[in-house]
Amino acid sequence: MTTSPALRTALAYHQAWTNHDLDTAMTHIADDIVCDAPAGRIEGSEAYRGFMGPFVDILKNATLIAAFGDDDTAVIVYDTESVPVASAPAAECVTVRNGLITYSRFIFDRTPFDAARAAAGQHVNP
Amino acid sequence: MTTSPALRTALAYHQAWTNHDLDTAMTHIADDIVCDAPAGRIEGSEAYRGFMGPFVDILKNATLIAAFGDDDTAVIVYDTESVPVASAPAAECVTVRNGLITYSRFIFDRTPFDAARAAAGQHVNP
Repeated sequence: MTTSPALRTALAYHQAWTNHDLDTAMTHIADDIVCDAPAGRIEGSEAYRGFMGPFVDILKNATLIAAFGDDDTAVIVYDTESVPVASAPAAECVTVRNGLITYSRFIFDRTPFDAARAAAGQHVNP
Repeated sequence: MTTSPALRTALAYHQAWTNHDLDTAMTHIADDIVCDAPAGRIEGSEAYRGFMGPFVDILKNATLIAAFGDDDTAVIVYDTESVPVASAPAAECVTVRNGLITYSRFIFDRTPFDAARAAAGQHVNP
């Protein structure tokens, strides 16, 4: 499907976690991954798993919008439907070395997730 | 630089507005553009200009992170430095028809902008 080795890795990772298979997804993540996410920098695969795990748990559906790559960089754009947010698009721009994602720039809007969390909190503690 | 006609248009648009030349940027935007932005759908070039203009006014610097495209789709990922927010990365996934951007999926995190606005408001009205 693609001649970009970075994109092959990014898509394999993406297809795994969006199918709720975080174990397989993590086989594409370098131990020393650095991820610049909206809330700040995440360093190391254990922290990265801690970042992705809660979202995989609430993910209902994901739709790939676009995917491009070259030798060492790939960008994937997708929409997600999760328990709290009906549509939350995201983009990941990743660097791939030796078949593993070593760096990720992760872009999405935190606002609807924060709003859902606040609404849930108000429900529990009115 | 690129064999993708969609990416040539997306980059010309990007270079114009990041150089504070919104007039030139708008020459690459279709009159009937549809843009799905974090706060909702924007329809038509006038509304799109109203969306971009205030950000162009406060933009201090932009750095392209990645740019890819094919015949009719392009994705650009970049970081921005603006008056209220030191680093606000964004991704735009655009559809290009006849040399004009007809659809844009615009992804960024609103949270730091809302926080800066709230802080400024608190300063004015303590």
